[in-house]
Amino acid sequence: MSDSSKTNKQVFAFEEGDGKNKKLLGGKGANLCEMTQIGLNVPPGFVISTEACLSYLAAPGGGLPKDLLAAIHAQLKVIETKTGKRFGDAKNPLLVSVRSGSAMSMPGMMDTILNLGLNEQTLAGEIEQTGDPRFGYDTYRRFIQLFGKIALGVSDELFDKELSVVKQNRGVKEDLALSADDLKEVSERFLRVVQEQTGKPFPSDPYEQLDQSVKAVFDSWMGKRAVDYRREFKITPDMANGTAVNICTMVFGNRGNDSATGVGFTRNPATGENQLYGEYLVNAQGEDVVAGIRTPKPLDAMSKEMPDLFRQLQELRAKLENHYHEVQDFEFTIERNTLYCLQTRNGKMNTTAMVRSSVEMEKAGLITRRQALLRITPESLAQMLFPRLDPNADARPLARGLPASPGATSGHAIFDADRAEQQGKAGKPVILVREETKPEDIHGFFASRGILTSRGGKTSHAAVVARGMGKPCVAGAEGIEVNVALRLATMGETIIHEGDIITIDGTSGLVYLGVVATLEAEITAELNVLLAWADKEARLAVMANADTPDDAKRALQLGAKGIGLCRTERMFNASDRLPIVLEMIIAEDLAQRQLALDRLLPIQRADFKGLLKTMAGLPVTIRLLDPPIHEFLPAEQQLVREIDELNHLLKTASGMEILSGTLDLLQDEELNPAEAARIKSNTVSPHVVELAITKKQAILKKVRALHEVNPMLGHRGVRLGITFPEIYLMQIRALAEATVECVKEGLDVHPEIMVPQVCTSAELRFVKGYVDQVVAEVEKSSGIKAKLKFGTMMEVVRACLRADSLAKEAEFFSFGTNDLTQATFSFSREDAENKFLPAYNQKDVLHDNPFEVLDTQGVGRLMKLAIEGGRAARPELTIGICGEHGGHPASIRFCHQIGLDYVSCSAPRVPIARLAAAHAKLSEG
Amino acid sequence: MSDSSKTNKQVFAFEEGDGKNKKLLGGKGANLCEMTQIGLNVPPGFVISTEACLSYLAAPGGGLPKDLLAAIHAQLKVIETKTGKRFGDAKNPLLVSVRSGSAMSMPGMMDTILNLGLNEQTLAGEIEQTGDPRFGYDTYRRFIQLFGKIALGVSDELFDKELSVVKQNRGVKEDLALSADDLKEVSERFLRVVQEQTGKPFPSDPYEQLDQSVKAVFDSWMGKRAVDYRREFKITPDMANGTAVNICTMVFGNRGNDSATGVGFTRNPATGENQLYGEYLVNAQGEDVVAGIRTPKPLDAMSKEMPDLFRQLQELRAKLENHYHEVQDFEFTIERNTLYCLQTRNGKMNTTAMVRSSVEMEKAGLITRRQALLRITPESLAQMLFPRLDPNADARPLARGLPASPGATSGHAIFDADRAEQQGKAGKPVILVREETKPEDIHGFFASRGILTSRGGKTSHAAVVARGMGKPCVAGAEGIEVNVALRLATMGETIIHEGDIITIDGTSGLVYLGVVATLEAEITAELNVLLAWADKEARLAVMANADTPDDAKRALQLGAKGIGLCRTERMFNASDRLPIVLEMIIAEDLAQRQLALDRLLPIQRADFKGLLKTMAGLPVTIRLLDPPIHEFLPAEQQLVREIDELNHLLKTASGMEILSGTLDLLQDEELNPAEAARIKSNTVSPHVVELAITKKQAILKKVRALHEVNPMLGHRGVRLGITFPEIYLMQIRALAEATVECVKEGLDVHPEIMVPQVCTSAELRFVKGYVDQVVAEVEKSSGIKAKLKFGTMMEVVRACLRADSLAKEAEFFSFGTNDLTQATFSFSREDAENKFLPAYNQKDVLHDNPFEVLDTQGVGRLMKLAIEGGRAARPELTIGICGEHGGHPASIRFCHQIGLDYVSCSAPRVPIARLAAAHAKLSEG
Repeated sequence: MSDSSKTNKQVFAFEEGDGKNKKLLGGKGANLCEMTQIGLNVPPGFVISTEACLSYLAAPGGGLPKDLLAAIHAQLKVIETKTGKRFGDAKNPLLVSVRSGSAMSMPGMMDTILNLGLNEQTLAGEIEQTGDPRFGYDTYRRFIQLFGKIALGVSDELFDKELSVVKQNRGVKEDLALSADDLKEVSERFLRVVQEQTGKPFPSDPYEQLDQSVKAVFDSWMGKRAVDYRREFKITPDMANGTAVNICTMVFGNRGNDSATGVGFTRNPATGENQLYGEYLVNAQGEDVVAGIRTPKPLDAMSKEMPDLFRQLQELRAKLENHYHEVQDFEFTIERNTLYCLQTRNGKMNTTAMVRSSVEMEKAGLITRRQALLRITPESLAQMLFPRLDPNADARPLARGLPASPGATSGHAIFDADRAEQQGKAGKPVILVREETKPEDIHGFFASRGILTSRGGKTSHAAVVARGMGKPCVAGAEGIEVNVALRLATMGETIIHEGDIITIDGTSGLVYLGVVATLEAEITAELNVLLAWADKEARLAVMANADTPDDAKRALQLGAKGIGLCRTERMFNASDRLPIVLEMIIAEDLAQRQLALDRLLPIQRADFKGLLKTMAGLPVTIRLLDPPIHEFLPAEQQLVREIDELNHLLKTASGMEILSGTLDLLQDEELNPAEAARIKSNTVSPHVVELAITKKQAILKKVRALHEVNPMLGHRGVRLGITFPEIYLMQIRALAEATVECVKEGLDVHPEIMVPQVCTSAELRFVKGYVDQVVAEVEKSSGIKAKLKFGTMMEVVRACLRADSLAKEAEFFSFGTNDLTQATFSFSREDAENKFLPAYNQKDVLHDNPFEVLDTQGVGRLMKLAIEGGRAARPELTIGICGEHGGHPASIRFCHQIGLDYVSCSAPRVPIARLAAAHAKLSEG
Repeated sequence: MSDSSKTNKQVFAFEEGDGKNKKLLGGKGANLCEMTQIGLNVPPGFVISTEACLSYLAAPGGGLPKDLLAAIHAQLKVIETKTGKRFGDAKNPLLVSVRSGSAMSMPGMMDTILNLGLNEQTLAGEIEQTGDPRFGYDTYRRFIQLFGKIALGVSDELFDKELSVVKQNRGVKEDLALSADDLKEVSERFLRVVQEQTGKPFPSDPYEQLDQSVKAVFDSWMGKRAVDYRREFKITPDMANGTAVNICTMVFGNRGNDSATGVGFTRNPATGENQLYGEYLVNAQGEDVVAGIRTPKPLDAMSKEMPDLFRQLQELRAKLENHYHEVQDFEFTIERNTLYCLQTRNGKMNTTAMVRSSVEMEKAGLITRRQALLRITPESLAQMLFPRLDPNADARPLARGLPASPGATSGHAIFDADRAEQQGKAGKPVILVREETKPEDIHGFFASRGILTSRGGKTSHAAVVARGMGKPCVAGAEGIEVNVALRLATMGETIIHEGDIITIDGTSGLVYLGVVATLEAEITAELNVLLAWADKEARLAVMANADTPDDAKRALQLGAKGIGLCRTERMFNASDRLPIVLEMIIAEDLAQRQLALDRLLPIQRADFKGLLKTMAGLPVTIRLLDPPIHEFLPAEQQLVREIDELNHLLKTASGMEILSGTLDLLQDEELNPAEAARIKSNTVSPHVVELAITKKQAILKKVRALHEVNPMLGHRGVRLGITFPEIYLMQIRALAEATVECVKEGLDVHPEIMVPQVCTSAELRFVKGYVDQVVAEVEKSSGIKAKLKFGTMMEVVRACLRADSLAKEAEFFSFGTNDLTQATFSFSREDAENKFLPAYNQKDVLHDNPFEVLDTQGVGRLMKLAIEGGRAARPELTIGICGEHGGHPASIRFCHQIGLDYVSCSAPRVPIARLAAAHAKLSEG
């Protein structure tokens, strides 16, 4: 067919239209054509094209062009031939539906007119044909109302009022209770309404009815609501231009017990199981299913009730999947033992079902492996990986915070870490609720199911630690006021006392009172099959961020190909280590500090050994200490308060009566048994209190000395390594010795050392000097080679700009895009997300939060510069990313495009990243 | 002369040697050759080359090669011919000096041997020639000691002991009191010392003396001290290899009243005045001048005492300047009416003298304008621009801080801004001493001569504000503990009570007790001439950072070509505005905030008008509000303390007795006259105290709400403009209205609006929308055009990466390299300079502080990317810099090289920048 004839043809039988050409036929029309052409039993009909609509609209004031009318009438004739019915016939009348449909779904355009073609004469024929006057009048009055409202602009209310009057007169409440005569009266009243409102009788000529309906549909394209909608959602003419009109033979599922209506899924949308799924009603219309007056039966029941039709339905199901290569959600009607398919579309399923059907359809040869992978959105896997609130649970949130670590859980609200640990160890489910958390709260994290804070953003301590542990966290829920002293929290007018049960949803950021039902994570066999396919397709390797052997094990189970980031400071935070770390920090000189470090060395060595053993055969990237050391210290205000309390105690308590709060303060101290006993009996010597004050004052002094104006840009990372080499030397020695111990046990281990916050190659040379020195010593004393791969974080802008120089020292680069984004935008994440990013989004200054969606134009440009520079200086350089962006699909795609070798993300996101890595490769085109 | 003959020749008469070839002849030898060859009367002599030294050292154990000895003897013959004296002659002996001299000045090598050639016989001849036995024996004993020590390695102490013995025997204290016989005895004792120590008699053969001296000089090149020195100062063989030996005829200024010795400058080194300057002693040796036993006379005196020789000296002076084209510092000796020039070198002068001589030498045609400019280091102009400590003052610093704003000043130490204002207004010189300052202290700055803080870095509030005002500031003097409550500060063991006088030097960072004499700044007519020349040469324009009309006037006087940065927030800080700003900040809603802004509008308009008028004809760049608004609020701890004090007062004071501190707290409040009177009489109603508490609590709440984790990366700059548009709208309106008012007065004004902290072009579009809207309104209501040029700060990394996109909105770029450096390195300046940059410098990880010396490789690369991107999108884009680097010569050179259009710096540094801009252009080569 030539282009010119194409543009001349304005009306297409369902057998003719191109099912792919939604622009010309609208979405609905194209779908009807496609279904017809693949042999589904669609009621006969045709589509009037969007071009016809545009031509009509371009010639204002006129009616439908003659050639268009002629083509419409010609198509009616075809239908008449197929159905044996005749439009306007008094014996066996043809009734049709008229529907709008543009290339994009768009509310505000004309809706559906059913039963078009009825008038006094054809109604009589219809009643004769069906032998059912009630059905006839019911059909008629529905038509009058729909046509009156949609084509003639008569208000719905006027019809509804008449219907009410009749029902009142008859003393009935339900439409169903009206008899044929009642409905006859209704239709007569309706006809009068039309006469009164339009000043003209209701059009009885079916052709005139059709003509007016088509024009009404066309006109509705330029209706205010449709125009507003297109403007609001930025629907431009190249996306959808004009509406098509679909004319389709009416079929009725309410023609008796040999008729029915229903909906079906080609597979179970909840589980993905490969079986017909759905429900139906005998002798009913589609709207009856929707109205919920009768309860539909599952489709299984049809195999007994209508066995032949059930077989046809199974055939339909097979046809649909064979054609669409996708699970279908379809509507059908059975009219007197004939099955019609009225609509089909891709079925919406949950992720578990998507994954199962992907694997099974691939195995059945219905789809390719590529299709199996691409039909699942990587982010949707989160549904399977984290527990979530039961969508059917009826719960009203009390407060909203930031969704800081995904997953949902319930537990007793506890307001401090010590008590959380106590209760958690006693087996209670606990949720730690704090204004904000500090490293000293870490034992409370271990003991809790989830964390809720009222301050701080998505990179607050609580958020970052919870994500690392895979525990749900809601952070910065500013509506909550936590009062630790009174052991309660207020959320609006609700007061939560310690011990009350709450539920938090770290995926949405919502907080609920009481238990809200949750659905557990489920990693199915099919998911593992799918992810194995993903790994085969992907070019990017997926590693995990993991800080403990337990984290590493989970990462391995989820398919991580190594550890891309181990944050050694997390090891410092454990409650048995923090006191030693504190000693290290408040040490007055190197000798004192070295004593503390000597105690930390075997602990770190054991940590590293555990990781290396777990990940044997795979790389383990150890990042040297990164955060400013003041992060390990208590907050200044807390110390001041504690010292005040202790001083108050000294002054006021006679015989040393102890307040419970103060007792807690003292229990931190190292006491001798006699003193401990006195504490237990609530008496204590002033000397003990004085000692505690002295120690706390020393810490307070250090806290003040270490105070920084902008800690994010402060004394941290390699800057600590250069000012206090002894810390890095200890960590390097711990790793070298752990490596040697593993090698002795015959393990194949791949330790890597990564230096944080690097901005110049001289820093790398400096640390490399330590590594070479320590490794030489350890190799000499053990007689075993301990090769440590050496690399750098790329999280400082200058590092990216000087990548060529850095690559001369580093064997690998790992982008830390969180810090890099902060520095590139000069946005402090915590300040930005609370203070101005919402306004930036609202006012359309920034479309995305750059901490969630990698900024490819700014940060991405720096990354490209770094890759160019680095590979130019060292072609075999390994390059990855270990920031949070490394777990987000759009960012993973960008990482793939710019040539990274791997991404590393938190363990629970590894499956998402594996699928995203495959998508990135597959969508290269 | 061919190369091979050049390498063969090892001994050069002063008439022969190449005065430029310091590598071959050493610095001293080359200088003697040059002086001889330009016709100065240098005593005859010759140079043994460094190559001769290396050859000798390469053949270990041997003596001087025969051909070398022959060449030396041949040159001696030449001298004999010239002088009529003979080496070793008993009648008229030739005496010589022997000196080492390599290409670089290097302590640790052999020093000078004078009077070589003396023995029993030649001494007799010398006595006969001079008729002065005392002179003869004095000369002899000096030679024995020098040769004994230097060539033979005999300890000085042994000689000194013998001399003491003789003086004791004679009962005299001074060498001068010794007679000829005494000195004869001394020389005999010295000869015995040599015999005893070396086991050999003192060498009497002058040729042997010479041979041994030359070898001793050569050997000293490999002496331990010389080798250590070269290693320490990284002197490599290509810089200096081997030492030369200079042999020169002795001349004596102590041969009678027709003899003399002295030093001269061709111009006055203190003032630059074009006159012979120096001093001399008749009948004396050079060492007598140094020893200070006799007081030398000014050279003027010579015009009467020795008129002919004075004339010769004037000729010498002219010859020197004509040859060297530089002021010379020379040494001379007159032996029996003959003037000898012994040494000359470029004169070290202070900057005032350098500037004057540059201008005068150029006018005299001695040097080109280019040379006149290039001989003055831009940074050295600071000497003329800021008051400085008198270098002759004898003062010991008490403490050291950071040199935060240059200049030196003295005054009474005052510990808070209110009292400083009080005392300053009373006419007392005041230095404000604080732990750190806040914007609310600004009135104290105005009233003080200088600022001293014990905390904070070079970008602390105190430092930045003081620099802007051109007042001296020493910041972060951590040795000082300020105790405001007790009204004292401790510096080590010294206690400074309020009112004690101290002196601070913001150029060195030192703090002194009491008054230390200072020299005032002096901008001379010659400096203005020189800077006008600089402006003609320079391609870069120099603008100034100025916030008030006063600043602008000073900048104009110092030659600024416009204002490149006006920090509008400085206007907010003035003490009459801060209360309104406070109201704006604590406003609960937009309406309240607008009320405060409406009061600020006329104030800002007047500010802007003042600036525009002052700078009529030149551009004035107004930067919209930049700092986070919490910077305008008092510190949290201070508020807490004040509220505590007020609460304490409420609880304890019966009849409302007021403590003096609390009285101050209340005076901030707006009180009615009766209450004010009661405050004055030290009584006040509880209600007033309660009101004060309520207000302070509101501020405290706001301080806490506005708290930021990393304020440097926080809610500031354009982010404020987007979240609180009303602030920027007020500022834009103030500028547009001020412009219109100026135009009405017939002034040619060039206002520019600059947006801070921009990271994306959408931010610029947003603000541009305000500008267009406000300008349209103001133009409409006034009927006058108000064109505001629109541009952006480039201080965020992303802005540099997206410069092409930004240049579509901005007509100019201005680099803020302080913030840009912070973001590029991820260094917070305040934290870095206190906490780790010292270690980085010490351990050679970073050579320079990047906040002082622009980092060309990292930050500079970003700037280049930005310039490329910006000019590609808008070729006529104006690009400048307004960070502190804009006032530093090395950075200005870089700015010139990468094609900036202008630099803008603090007003006092404008002259430095103008000269540096000229240097940058001139050194393009």
